[in-house]
Amino acid sequence: MPKTLVAVTRSPLSPTPRSTIKRGRKRAVTDRAALDAVLDAGLICHLSVVIDGSPVVLPTGYGRDGDTLYLHGSTGALSLRSALDNEVCVAVTLLDGIVYARSVFHFSANYRSAVVHGHARLVESAEERLHGLKVLTEHMAPGSWNHSREPNAKELAKTAVLALSLDEAALKVRTGGPGDEPEDISDNLAWAGVLPLTQQWGAPQPSDDLAPGWEIPAHVMDRYASRG
Amino acid sequence: MPKTLVAVTRSPLSPTPRSTIKRGRKRAVTDRAALDAVLDAGLICHLSVVIDGSPVVLPTGYGRDGDTLYLHGSTGALSLRSALDNEVCVAVTLLDGIVYARSVFHFSANYRSAVVHGHARLVESAEERLHGLKVLTEHMAPGSWNHSREPNAKELAKTAVLALSLDEAALKVRTGGPGDEPEDISDNLAWAGVLPLTQQWGAPQPSDDLAPGWEIPAHVMDRYASRG
Repeated sequence: MPKTLVAVTRSPLSPTPRSTIKRGRKRAVTDRAALDAVLDAGLICHLSVVIDGSPVVLPTGYGRDGDTLYLHGSTGALSLRSALDNEVCVAVTLLDGIVYARSVFHFSANYRSAVVHGHARLVESAEERLHGLKVLTEHMAPGSWNHSREPNAKELAKTAVLALSLDEAALKVRTGGPGDEPEDISDNLAWAGVLPLTQQWGAPQPSDDLAPGWEIPAHVMDRYASRG
Repeated sequence: MPKTLVAVTRSPLSPTPRSTIKRGRKRAVTDRAALDAVLDAGLICHLSVVIDGSPVVLPTGYGRDGDTLYLHGSTGALSLRSALDNEVCVAVTLLDGIVYARSVFHFSANYRSAVVHGHARLVESAEERLHGLKVLTEHMAPGSWNHSREPNAKELAKTAVLALSLDEAALKVRTGGPGDEPEDISDNLAWAGVLPLTQQWGAPQPSDDLAPGWEIPAHVMDRYASRG
């Protein structure tokens, strides 16, 4: 069967049961590079916190440095304050395609999904706050930290930086075609295959208020030219 | 300033404070068609539930029919059982570009984000379960319900279908260039603009075990040809 499901847990392996892959596990490996690759390939994450007993999930930026995921937000945001009171969960998902099967039951998606659980730490030191913001900026827009103006004291005061350890993280990957029933395959009753999906950068659009004379900087052009 | 932030709440307006947009609100409208358009344009959602007091967020499929979002999963999945015990939160996010600013502080992303809160209802009736699965399948792979084999009794027994009302939902949209400080704009100290991002379908890949003689069906080819 062409499909592959991979569960990756970091060392130490699965500190708590929820970070193990319970459904659809085919094999578990401890390839931490695979987890890092998904976290580095994603652009945004979905951050979930508990507010008054109910879950709230929001898209937000992030960046990884070694074993630490940095998140940020306004110091006044309810979700960030809640993130410090309870555990958080962060998901980074890359959707790679839709899997068409002979039977509706076996329709699926190809994807790479990293999920991280833990207590976020409010970064207090000025040095690490600046470092976390650099990691975030370079993740969102590589090459921009040195190109653009760094945060001033007033801007730093408005920005909360959170650090989340990658100690409790899981990776789930699905690739390949559908896992149809043998009788449906032999009955040959429907088309089966994958419609791949990729993300593509469009041509850089200079801001309306940009002064004349600018060429697109190399760090922007290189990203546009790079992919997907 | 070219950027636009739109908060959409359905009628009744913002039943609870958490579904209002607190940060970065520029204007609130009640255009329910805009919310529906984002839910229909997304391919997967991020479902968040609370398990043992902590948030868990997972990517999963969904489909919309009128005021109802349908979700599904294995009847044995911990996250689905937890979804019925507490409220859930569902986010559908479309990332449209990265916003490069003169200052690191004003880097941003253009996106459309729908967030839905509520108690999910386990769909009990066979008719609505089949209907929910049809809605899910047609959202994930339009045209496939009639092309592929419908679920049999055994498959239906394995599949839980959840219904979530869209009564408490919020939409946040950002478009346009950076909101830089006037002094940074006049100082002309960095390039500013948007690097747009789109999703593109790749050429359909027939399954390795597909019998010879199949042409790519129209509902797959049309999707491939359509976009983006």
